[in-house]
Amino acid sequence: MKNIVLASTSTLYGEAYLAYLQPVIKELFAAAGEVIFVPYARPGGISHDEYTANAAKVFADAGITLRGLHTFDNPAEALRVGKGFFTGGGNTFLLVKQLHELGVMQVLAEEVSNGKPYLGTSAGSNIGGVNMQTTNDMPIVYPPSFTTMGLVPFNLNPHYLDPIPELPHMGETRETRIKEFHTQQVVPVVGLREGGWIRVKDTRVTLEGVPAARIFLPGKPAYEVKSGEEIVF
Amino acid sequence: MKNIVLASTSTLYGEAYLAYLQPVIKELFAAAGEVIFVPYARPGGISHDEYTANAAKVFADAGITLRGLHTFDNPAEALRVGKGFFTGGGNTFLLVKQLHELGVMQVLAEEVSNGKPYLGTSAGSNIGGVNMQTTNDMPIVYPPSFTTMGLVPFNLNPHYLDPIPELPHMGETRETRIKEFHTQQVVPVVGLREGGWIRVKDTRVTLEGVPAARIFLPGKPAYEVKSGEEIVF
Repeated sequence: MKNIVLASTSTLYGEAYLAYLQPVIKELFAAAGEVIFVPYARPGGISHDEYTANAAKVFADAGITLRGLHTFDNPAEALRVGKGFFTGGGNTFLLVKQLHELGVMQVLAEEVSNGKPYLGTSAGSNIGGVNMQTTNDMPIVYPPSFTTMGLVPFNLNPHYLDPIPELPHMGETRETRIKEFHTQQVVPVVGLREGGWIRVKDTRVTLEGVPAARIFLPGKPAYEVKSGEEIVF
Repeated sequence: MKNIVLASTSTLYGEAYLAYLQPVIKELFAAAGEVIFVPYARPGGISHDEYTANAAKVFADAGITLRGLHTFDNPAEALRVGKGFFTGGGNTFLLVKQLHELGVMQVLAEEVSNGKPYLGTSAGSNIGGVNMQTTNDMPIVYPPSFTTMGLVPFNLNPHYLDPIPELPHMGETRETRIKEFHTQQVVPVVGLREGGWIRVKDTRVTLEGVPAARIFLPGKPAYEVKSGEEIVF
């Protein structure tokens, strides 16, 4: 039975790291006791150790021990025996490159698909999708593949941002970018606004949190899904 | 003698396509008469034909004939005999993939380095840099390489956007993303605000247009370069 949370962001504006996700963390990992943290997205270039320490502080408040995947000699084996996983945000290209080069993308996908609890935030949520090709991140490294875990049958666009009408900026809006994605691929995309998360329990996929999410299907007008509603295609 | 313009954007807010660049187009391509248009970035998924027609209308007003690279049987040969080149914006991943797969990235780089005039806007400017790894675009396709033409010894970030202080959005700012790039690479980055362009005349590289540009070097504080000033490292 799948037991997954894919959150748009780790941090809400003006709040502490993971603060709004504390109830989710407690529910998700209550039975796990120890959770493995995947620190490879390295937001702002932070070190694996420092990133893990930051996340571990928050998990300690929930009575959960967090250990960085980078501290294991055999990361694939660590995932096989691990009881639950949290992948933090940062740069999706860095994260995906590292997971593929370590040969653990598929291992993590299998362990989570078989029922171990998984939390992703931002880049850590992107890798729950079919591929990373709707990330907002800069391609600062070249991953051997853009394929990700496919825990859900769609892609995510975390930190989804509505167009800002008063902004005299001619760069593409997020919606335009996602429509460009759909000129190339038919994978559905969930634009996940900050404060929202996708909850997977077995085969049921729902939107949770405060904001609605915006759904993009190729060749169709985008539409909204409200918190509590199922995400089905 | 290099003769290159790399512009942040094709279109200023509230203006027509390429309107603010008309004087630049006339100066750059006056002697060329016919220019080859590289339409592969396909903004919004527009077809090669339609994109070329849009650009050709503007060039016709300046007395210049524009022909799409996609209409030549042998694109490499077309570039070898072509007299000048314009690469339009859109999705940088699409553009770079197509140029590499056609085997013309290096050909275009050579022809422009040898003195043929080149105009790039947005994605078309990104490929003037060392690599495309400071693009803002979504990775909607997987290029065989991120390497670009290296017409200048730095990378560009077109549509550079300053942080918006009142925006309660926790996605990374552009500056944060570029700093993350510098955790992986030492290539300097020019954050090119809309309305600005880089002018290369032989070995002299200057900033032109209205706004200042923001310069990012690894391990140093970002700084501003004003219009008319040289960009040197």
